[in-house]
Amino acid sequence: MTRSELVEQIKARKSFLCVGLDTDMSKIPAILNGGDDPAFEFNKKIIDATQDFCVAYKLNTAFYEANASAGWESLKKTIEYIPASHFVIADAKRGDIGNTSTMYANAFFENLHADAVTVAPYMGEDSVRPFLQFNGKWTILLALTSNEGSRDFQYFEINDDLPLYKKVILKSQDWGTTENLMYVVGATRIEQLTEIRHIAPEHFLLIPGVGAQGGSLKEVAEKTLIKDYGILINSSREIIYASSGEDFAEKAAEKAQALQQEMLRYF
Amino acid sequence: MTRSELVEQIKARKSFLCVGLDTDMSKIPAILNGGDDPAFEFNKKIIDATQDFCVAYKLNTAFYEANASAGWESLKKTIEYIPASHFVIADAKRGDIGNTSTMYANAFFENLHADAVTVAPYMGEDSVRPFLQFNGKWTILLALTSNEGSRDFQYFEINDDLPLYKKVILKSQDWGTTENLMYVVGATRIEQLTEIRHIAPEHFLLIPGVGAQGGSLKEVAEKTLIKDYGILINSSREIIYASSGEDFAEKAAEKAQALQQEMLRYF
Repeated sequence: MTRSELVEQIKARKSFLCVGLDTDMSKIPAILNGGDDPAFEFNKKIIDATQDFCVAYKLNTAFYEANASAGWESLKKTIEYIPASHFVIADAKRGDIGNTSTMYANAFFENLHADAVTVAPYMGEDSVRPFLQFNGKWTILLALTSNEGSRDFQYFEINDDLPLYKKVILKSQDWGTTENLMYVVGATRIEQLTEIRHIAPEHFLLIPGVGAQGGSLKEVAEKTLIKDYGILINSSREIIYASSGEDFAEKAAEKAQALQQEMLRYF
Repeated sequence: MTRSELVEQIKARKSFLCVGLDTDMSKIPAILNGGDDPAFEFNKKIIDATQDFCVAYKLNTAFYEANASAGWESLKKTIEYIPASHFVIADAKRGDIGNTSTMYANAFFENLHADAVTVAPYMGEDSVRPFLQFNGKWTILLALTSNEGSRDFQYFEINDDLPLYKKVILKSQDWGTTENLMYVVGATRIEQLTEIRHIAPEHFLLIPGVGAQGGSLKEVAEKTLIKDYGILINSSREIIYASSGEDFAEKAAEKAQALQQEMLRYF
């Protein structure tokens, strides 16, 4: 999906919400257990219920790998099920030497048909470039993450006084463009969002951490929205586990819709 | 596998060689194509041929993911096939927020029964700790990698003048011990090996980049060996693709044996 197509979807749905399908077998409502592929059945119902309120789905690969090859089948079937109108992010946080990153890029773009993959920056340019070689596909580079451990290395000040996460954002702008490179920026780092938008004025930002992790949608949106929106705000657990009963899809829809309603003021 | 068990295996085989099973479907000898699971058949023959000369196998997950759920089956079957005497590394370079890293740790330790997983440090302590919670299992943290892109961020000097890769090594020593934490240090960074051994005097180092990537075994060993060895030297392509003909396993054995013979002087 190209940038202009993504922006069209955002306008059409009046939403920049991404729903995170962190589908945990131990949290799936009991009513789904016993079927052939409970993770896929759960995802289908969540997708049916939420697609009118979001423009993207993010599949965290860890939750599928925890179920080995069966999990990869659930992942593949889920991506096939997501309507073509929606942007699909494989939240895989991959990154390795060149020939290996190429393998990962093939796995997610060619084989699973995801629109985007999250990539870890530690190994540098040749670990990231293979993901940038695919037309209409996106690399979403980790910059400033939403977890406590982000404080361990990402804030380290480099000799010229910039923190590591800013160096990652600045340096990687030589590798990709605003048409194929986004950044992960945690919503729990409100004070940094303005500065990040300053050094990446036109890149899309994928912003996790709204909801269960504590970030506020309004604060985040006000610091990061640009002319063509330029943000995807992700919420996972708060939506998909809104209820553990038979009404899980209905409750997920309510949560997604509530977030989308909060977004209406920006359209 | 505990440290003392690993050291016993190293002594018994007079080898600290790790064979990298970067099994690429496009490079598997033609004779294996057409079978049910060519990647697994290839790995079985490589394992049969090389196990006397090595103490570890490293499976690069990208090469299996490129084949989706069938690839995960090959990965699982290969790990099951590796003798219990050999240390199994899932070279996955994972790392995510806590609950997600726990999922990855379960996937590799509980489900696939790997002895070790490689982990990327960018997201900090809470992304690494979940991997360190398993008895007898190992976390192998990326420190200084063997690729060109390692120069992009890993050498950045932090305000106190230490490069990022050294900060990663020093800080992470608070998270794990010499019994459950190793570091990835590329063999192509000879000049740094002495310094790394100085700041991590007792940790095992996993050293890729010998062979196809250009590092010399002798130079590396002399700078990193300690009393109980404390290193695993990995070679992948040079061994497993030594021949693309019917004699691929025999040629792989010759290459592995040649490296093991080079190691004899240290026993």
